[in-house]
Amino acid sequence: MKILECVPNFSEGRDEKKVEQIVEEVRKTPGAKLLDYFSDPDHNRTVVTFLGEPAPVREAALRASLKALELIDMRTHKGGHPRIGAVDVIPFVPIRGLDMTEAAHMAREMGKELGELGQLPIYFYGEAATDPRRKKLADIRKGQYESLKEKLATPGWNPDAGTSDFNPKSGAAIVGARMPLIAFNVNLRPPKLDQAKAVARKVRESSGGIPSVQALGLELKEKAMVQVSMNLTDYRRASIPTVVEAIRREIAGKGLEIAECEVVGLIPMEALVDVVRDSLKMPEFDMKQIIETHLLE
Amino acid sequence: MKILECVPNFSEGRDEKKVEQIVEEVRKTPGAKLLDYFSDPDHNRTVVTFLGEPAPVREAALRASLKALELIDMRTHKGGHPRIGAVDVIPFVPIRGLDMTEAAHMAREMGKELGELGQLPIYFYGEAATDPRRKKLADIRKGQYESLKEKLATPGWNPDAGTSDFNPKSGAAIVGARMPLIAFNVNLRPPKLDQAKAVARKVRESSGGIPSVQALGLELKEKAMVQVSMNLTDYRRASIPTVVEAIRREIAGKGLEIAECEVVGLIPMEALVDVVRDSLKMPEFDMKQIIETHLLE
Repeated sequence: MKILECVPNFSEGRDEKKVEQIVEEVRKTPGAKLLDYFSDPDHNRTVVTFLGEPAPVREAALRASLKALELIDMRTHKGGHPRIGAVDVIPFVPIRGLDMTEAAHMAREMGKELGELGQLPIYFYGEAATDPRRKKLADIRKGQYESLKEKLATPGWNPDAGTSDFNPKSGAAIVGARMPLIAFNVNLRPPKLDQAKAVARKVRESSGGIPSVQALGLELKEKAMVQVSMNLTDYRRASIPTVVEAIRREIAGKGLEIAECEVVGLIPMEALVDVVRDSLKMPEFDMKQIIETHLLE
Repeated sequence: MKILECVPNFSEGRDEKKVEQIVEEVRKTPGAKLLDYFSDPDHNRTVVTFLGEPAPVREAALRASLKALELIDMRTHKGGHPRIGAVDVIPFVPIRGLDMTEAAHMAREMGKELGELGQLPIYFYGEAATDPRRKKLADIRKGQYESLKEKLATPGWNPDAGTSDFNPKSGAAIVGARMPLIAFNVNLRPPKLDQAKAVARKVRESSGGIPSVQALGLELKEKAMVQVSMNLTDYRRASIPTVVEAIRREIAGKGLEIAECEVVGLIPMEALVDVVRDSLKMPEFDMKQIIETHLLE
């Protein structure tokens, strides 16, 4: 069985009725399994998570997006989170049985269809990007909805699919593919915040650390610990054991120890199997040895 | 989703056509997923592994057993493995979403049905046993098929279901429930066989070690290692981390180290999650955080 996840972000987080109508499109698509949805009224934004075989996931993403385009009017949208349109971003995430190339292809096909049916400009991002300058969401979103009309007229920013004309009601949509994001924290004691920040600087990609790792040093007052709070944006490049080992090396001899770890939210089975392989020294352990995986074939 | 596994052992391991006919009954039962089957001509015995929701698994077990009763004649059966009948033993194994009580209840219901339809004596074993003396397979099987007629006439050995009369063609069937068996090895170096044997004695239940652990010390000549070869018969009582930690304590200061571990064959996801929780110090990690589990709901 191929499993694709989709985590679209819609620019509506206050009107519950509208949110429900959008989410309902996912619920009623046979073969798409809704895992979660979360609306943030301050951001005025809703994040929906669902998964299944690629075809129904694509179908659910399209239906929910068309409903969002119908219900959301960007001309009156205000919210604390950057956004470029009503269907702000649609990431497709390969979980099992398909690779990134296939997920990226699916993202582009879905983006084209959405652009045509919704009559709006589409940008491809992440692993579906057509240009390295369009890899990062923040770069595409820069200037937000309010600058989109100018952006569309700027050389180098013609959309990848859909219309080239500004759509005042819907803005643009950003469609792409990325690896699953793992929110992984390592909690240290004693609570020396400076040291946690130093560890975070050492491990994160942006300051020359491990590729695909984002990290911050935080204080956990109630626990009397400090935290290296991380996003692992590609666990195949930087696995949990790799990151934990790097932190262990970093704190060695500095009077700090790892008190506990946390996975926040969801994680693919393969990322946990990395932990098992490493901690039991059995690199050849195969996912197919897990009984339950045979029901996912 | 509830997941039940069934691992019946049939007393035919030489005639491929008969084996295929028996296995075909599993294959053609909707909702039962055949994982594996293995015939040993010396043992003259075939072990079949399949799983799915309880109802189809029970149905597949019944169909395959009735086919085995039709094809196998114990009056001419010879083989190296102890056996009491054509359908020698049918273990039901709870994998997910159901507890041992439910699996044991299912085993008894299936055993009754098999006893009536097949007109043979049924003994319940393991967690489905009606008497502590019937917990262990070896105790029920003692004397094998050849002594079954006398056994049935012996006080205390009346069957739990089916007929009380000896069935010369089919013998008896032993039906029950047990936890999944995990074949787990810890390989040590340098290759000191005496020490591996001493470690095995320390950890196994039979010599006063950890309940539900069976262990042997073996030599691995090619690898220049020794092995503590184990069966974990109830990972909820003795988990992989518990066993590894016990071995670590046992070898501490004796010049031995754990070179690698091995899981042979299949393992339930929960037993691996035990390893993750322990090695990352995150006891509160929940199976529901694994993305794939949502497709097994």
